Amino acid sequence: MPVSTTKEPRVTQGTMWAIQKAAPGPGLKPATVPIPSVGEKDVRVRVTAFAICGTDLHIVEWDAWAASRIRPPLIPGHEFTGVVESIGSEVTLVQPGDRVTAETHIFCGICYACRRGLQHLCQKVQILGVDRAGAFADFVVIPEQNVWRIHPDIPEEIAAIHDPLGNAVHTALAGPVAGLRFAVFGCGPIGCFSIGVLKAAGAAWVAAIDKNPARLELARAMGADLAVNVERGTATQEVLRATDGRGVDGMLEMSGHPQAFRDGFEMLANGGRVSLLGIPSAPLEIDVAKEIIFRGAQVQGINGRLIFDTWFRMEALLLSGKLDVKPVLTHVLGWSEFDQAVELQRSGKAGKIVLLRDRP
Amino acid sequence: MPVSTTKEPRVTQGTMWAIQKAAPGPGLKPATVPIPSVGEKDVRVRVTAFAICGTDLHIVEWDAWAASRIRPPLIPGHEFTGVVESIGSEVTLVQPGDRVTAETHIFCGICYACRRGLQHLCQKVQILGVDRAGAFADFVVIPEQNVWRIHPDIPEEIAAIHDPLGNAVHTALAGPVAGLRFAVFGCGPIGCFSIGVLKAAGAAWVAAIDKNPARLELARAMGADLAVNVERGTATQEVLRATDGRGVDGMLEMSGHPQAFRDGFEMLANGGRVSLLGIPSAPLEIDVAKEIIFRGAQVQGINGRLIFDTWFRMEALLLSGKLDVKPVLTHVLGWSEFDQAVELQRSGKAGKIVLLRDRP
Amino acid sequence: MPVSTTKEPRVTQGTMWAIQKAAPGPGLKPATVPIPSVGEKDVRVRVTAFAICGTDLHIVEWDAWAASRIRPPLIPGHEFTGVVESIGSEVTLVQPGDRVTAETHIFCGICYACRRGLQHLCQKVQILGVDRAGAFADFVVIPEQNVWRIHPDIPEEIAAIHDPLGNAVHTALAGPVAGLRFAVFGCGPIGCFSIGVLKAAGAAWVAAIDKNPARLELARAMGADLAVNVERGTATQEVLRATDGRGVDGMLEMSGHPQAFRDGFEMLANGGRVSLLGIPSAPLEIDVAKEIIFRGAQVQGINGRLIFDTWFRMEALLLSGKLDVKPVLTHVLGWSEFDQAVELQRSGKAGKIVLLRDRP
Amino acid sequence: MPVSTTKEPRVTQGTMWAIQKAAPGPGLKPATVPIPSVGEKDVRVRVTAFAICGTDLHIVEWDAWAASRIRPPLIPGHEFTGVVESIGSEVTLVQPGDRVTAETHIFCGICYACRRGLQHLCQKVQILGVDRAGAFADFVVIPEQNVWRIHPDIPEEIAAIHDPLGNAVHTALAGPVAGLRFAVFGCGPIGCFSIGVLKAAGAAWVAAIDKNPARLELARAMGADLAVNVERGTATQEVLRATDGRGVDGMLEMSGHPQAFRDGFEMLANGGRVSLLGIPSAPLEIDVAKEIIFRGAQVQGINGRLIFDTWFRMEALLLSGKLDVKPVLTHVLGWSEFDQAVELQRSGKAGKIVLLRDRP
Repeated sequence: MPVSTTKEPRVTQGTMWAIQKAAPGPGLKPATVPIPSVGEKDVRVRVTAFAICGTDLHIVEWDAWAASRIRPPLIPGHEFTGVVESIGSEVTLVQPGDRVTAETHIFCGICYACRRGLQHLCQKVQILGVDRAGAFADFVVIPEQNVWRIHPDIPEEIAAIHDPLGNAVHTALAGPVAGLRFAVFGCGPIGCFSIGVLKAAGAAWVAAIDKNPARLELARAMGADLAVNVERGTATQEVLRATDGRGVDGMLEMSGHPQAFRDGFEMLANGGRVSLLGIPSAPLEIDVAKEIIFRGAQVQGINGRLIFDTWFRMEALLLSGKLDVKPVLTHVLGWSEFDQAVELQRSGKAGKIVLLRDRP
Repeated sequence: MPVSTTKEPRVTQGTMWAIQKAAPGPGLKPATVPIPSVGEKDVRVRVTAFAICGTDLHIVEWDAWAASRIRPPLIPGHEFTGVVESIGSEVTLVQPGDRVTAETHIFCGICYACRRGLQHLCQKVQILGVDRAGAFADFVVIPEQNVWRIHPDIPEEIAAIHDPLGNAVHTALAGPVAGLRFAVFGCGPIGCFSIGVLKAAGAAWVAAIDKNPARLELARAMGADLAVNVERGTATQEVLRATDGRGVDGMLEMSGHPQAFRDGFEMLANGGRVSLLGIPSAPLEIDVAKEIIFRGAQVQGINGRLIFDTWFRMEALLLSGKLDVKPVLTHVLGWSEFDQAVELQRSGKAGKIVLLRDRP
Repeated sequence: MPVSTTKEPRVTQGTMWAIQKAAPGPGLKPATVPIPSVGEKDVRVRVTAFAICGTDLHIVEWDAWAASRIRPPLIPGHEFTGVVESIGSEVTLVQPGDRVTAETHIFCGICYACRRGLQHLCQKVQILGVDRAGAFADFVVIPEQNVWRIHPDIPEEIAAIHDPLGNAVHTALAGPVAGLRFAVFGCGPIGCFSIGVLKAAGAAWVAAIDKNPARLELARAMGADLAVNVERGTATQEVLRATDGRGVDGMLEMSGHPQAFRDGFEMLANGGRVSLLGIPSAPLEIDVAKEIIFRGAQVQGINGRLIFDTWFRMEALLLSGKLDVKPVLTHVLGWSEFDQAVELQRSGKAGKIVLLRDRP
Repeated sequence: MPVSTTKEPRVTQGTMWAIQKAAPGPGLKPATVPIPSVGEKDVRVRVTAFAICGTDLHIVEWDAWAASRIRPPLIPGHEFTGVVESIGSEVTLVQPGDRVTAETHIFCGICYACRRGLQHLCQKVQILGVDRAGAFADFVVIPEQNVWRIHPDIPEEIAAIHDPLGNAVHTALAGPVAGLRFAVFGCGPIGCFSIGVLKAAGAAWVAAIDKNPARLELARAMGADLAVNVERGTATQEVLRATDGRGVDGMLEMSGHPQAFRDGFEMLANGGRVSLLGIPSAPLEIDVAKEIIFRGAQVQGINGRLIFDTWFRMEALLLSGKLDVKPVLTHVLGWSEFDQAVELQRSGKAGKIVLLRDRP
């Protein structure tokens, strides 16, 4: 595949390897598909690494959400990095050869949300690998406006996970942090990342809460001061004790689990912040009077990443050495090990798994 | 009752008239009780007018909340105005003869919330007429720190309702308003007040939603651009149609009703504000993923009034003529008509009812 | 000039009327110039009305700023409205025939400021009529991203002044307003507009300060509660007296005059907001310790308009009837009266002057 | 001196050692003065350590500011720690024997600023050791509302400098920090503290600028990534180069020096924050148009500490180990070495000097 070095828009006639949801139903299969063409404002990226998100597992399993949202055939995948292979005639932000990843919420730019600077809440958002062809493939095409250039000092496997790391940065930094105390519910990769971000941002104390001992270990490695297994049933008491009865100034919800909504408010100081990122699988019962109103809680729905404020701050935290996410990167595999990676992730025994194209 | 004009603390030996919850169970009765004594940092006020809050109705009816919180004997009442009769030796803020009302959340001043400027969320708050003797009486004693002086240009019946009006000001001004669109759920007095505050603060459009036609009339009188009877089942559609599909930028919840939590989020623009003041009587089911997270909603628990930021802004809105609350003041009665006032308020046919001591 | 009704990009071969700075030096002259061509992401607008900004007067007079910034030949003009005549092939936001105006700060979209949502502070900003061909002409070309559609209910002469009105909205709404008190220094059109916006947004009291009696009259017509001629030398005293010694909660600086920087801080309450829009012609001496530090002042440099948050709120304030700017629109002339308009504006006797193409 | 263990207010008849400004003019002298009495809401503290602030040097030298503000006889000193010796009858926050220090801005509690939560900007503020008797003495009396209890894990010499450290915390945390870049002008103790706070709060990069090589060394020890001697004349260039031309997101001004106002804005990214704490000795010339308006700068006057939000966050940063201020504590002396301490501090060769009562 020759790399285009001109700015001419081009349509490559060839085909490429991809992992595809060919038709409704469980599973994903490798396939040979046409290389996607490049519009005038588009960038085509030769993917060099990707990672599997919880969203991708829903697509594999074809659960109710996937069945209602996904229109096969679809190439999933939105956590990735690669090298610009060709660019449309209008593109100025990057050149072929640049290392990049992307903000995977493709925003329309003209809706009420977008025009007021809330592109991350675009009313017509298309998510890469969900609503349009994603990155589990040799090539992926993204609009220039969504491209993010990767600094040379950032390694491949971290470049591949800017999407979930950005979720964590957005959530953790959605209010004051320095000198305050926090609880993080759910210690999957994004929960663990957010613990690292909180500590890098000067959180004085962070409690991590999960039911999975392996994940609690990761949370500790990322800097959690207290790790509580929710199955002990003592999370609220332990947090209140450790904070002299004051409770936490902020709670990050990364699990989507109803128990987190019960415990999380209980341990929140009056006027505290609640930042919700984890997606509950069903409506939840909340004691609004006690937990939100009398407590004066500030509850934020968090979605995606601030475009591109979150990205600049994430990059700076990484480059400064303030934020080290390596403990969460428990596995680096090759593309041929995709099925093993899915299994590993399902097992709950892994942190983040990155798959490199050229793994030796 | 001679008015003390010295700064000496004093204990008046006499007795006074009050309305009292003498023992657990429904009802309130007039009683003769000792005049309360004045501590060094206290102000004793000769009450000249009061109003009946929804909270007072709970106390009359002795519902589950009242049974769990109220410790009889208790004089209820926290919406009032009066004249300073005597002051403790340490008091400098007011003099006997000053017209006053009070911030009725008696804050401790030293808890974690209070010391960070969140006195309205004091962890040891005592509410006047709930946790200590209230204002349905000849005299009420309040700590100096909670006293608010009434400007001479503010009439008696408005001075008497600064507490609920302050709730409305706090809720409405808890985010940007000018040039934005709002929905207000629940058109009782506080809901109606908040419509007036929103319009005074430059809201471009306000929808009022209730099931009571009389209250929807009051809402219109306070400036609502659209009044929807929730029983039509078309609130969301009507609001979306009137806002070109954008939805409202903010939603104020003043009803505590589960339907408001269903409709209110549905009509909210992405990134919009939800300010919750109405107290639901039971836990509620909320579709957190759809309504809060994907929408990027900012949900605020609102409690009391900012001390005293809300009060300064309320006074300035009233004095400038920007805010006219008279349409909501549907009845002015005398103290002897207390029982009728309770009935009237229960009927849902009144807005705010003020009871004057000296009604001709 | 036939209006294109297709989406095909086109280059019109003809010529058009324009007012031009042909070469360095004072003055502007009518000229016949080529009609500008339309790029793929551009919109060509048939101008139907424009207004003359203070910036345009600098260009006419060829002062030091103009000599250093302007590269003739240049068509000035950035306050305008018109009808879309043709659009580039990539444009989706508007159609030929749509009434429009434009955000006249043409932002690059990819600098550090733009990518963090601060497009109004773009580091490579090009201002229409300053850095590229403006609107004193039959046609003007603007990038789609900068186009703003005009609602049918907004009249021509108000559509023509969205740029300066947007400055006023941005400045006035750069902090809380409702129930607060303000001083506005400088009662030219933007100062007067901002008084209207403050009052629409619930300002409890606004003082207007200028040396020109005619402008102070306009300020009063826009709702100023106190109008002080700065030459009386009593502005600070009068404002302090009227605010019970508290001072104003916010000060909007619209004059660029050194006296405003002296008086304005003096009358500011501790912790107050200072929003600076007026451009001083030279560096100023400021007593930083007394005026900013000990006072805890919050001083904001204000530039342009928030893109497009300011625009949505401006439109909503206009459509709701909350904001009526007609008193400031003192003159409506025809294009042939351009020179008279310049003279009138220089005289300080006019508010805003709008020039209509088709004035009867 | 027997320690009172009752809550009875008391007046000790004895005398104590103090350092005093006995009469207008340069110098300070030891003196024997009456032990101050304890009002009902007061706390009398047996001082165990204090430090000398730049303000104290002004008082020693009797410069213009001191001559205009200080009314001898006065005991200076506001950086201190000690043990509660007796308390007034109304005091509940502390007990005799508690280790404490104080917020040294004695606020009135009832002015417009205080009642809106801006006690640090109290219009009638009295500063300890400036407007009333300070802490260079055996005993100091402070109102209960200003007392701050010291956690057992915080060592004596750090307890003694909470006042200047609080200035640094307030300034550094007056806006977002994590993942952003900063410049700090002036590397005296507060400047150096603020570098430590910025880094603890996740600043990605901090430049320190001063003319004193010893202070630049301290700045580096506190975590500065770049230390520039302002006399090189290259501060702006060096900072722009190190930030890829973007400039810094925030600038903390801790020097009061006019050069800082020139360089500081030049290196500020558009929309950046400028937090001013250093007190210029005279009015300054500022190019408001270029530096503040076109740049969209957000300039904050910073005064004192947020009461007590700053204090809680300072304590949490210290206890968590996030913030280590020891490098700045260059000297620990005894009270008998007061004159040497003044000389040392004047020389610019010291960081912070703490004087312990009981130094061996």
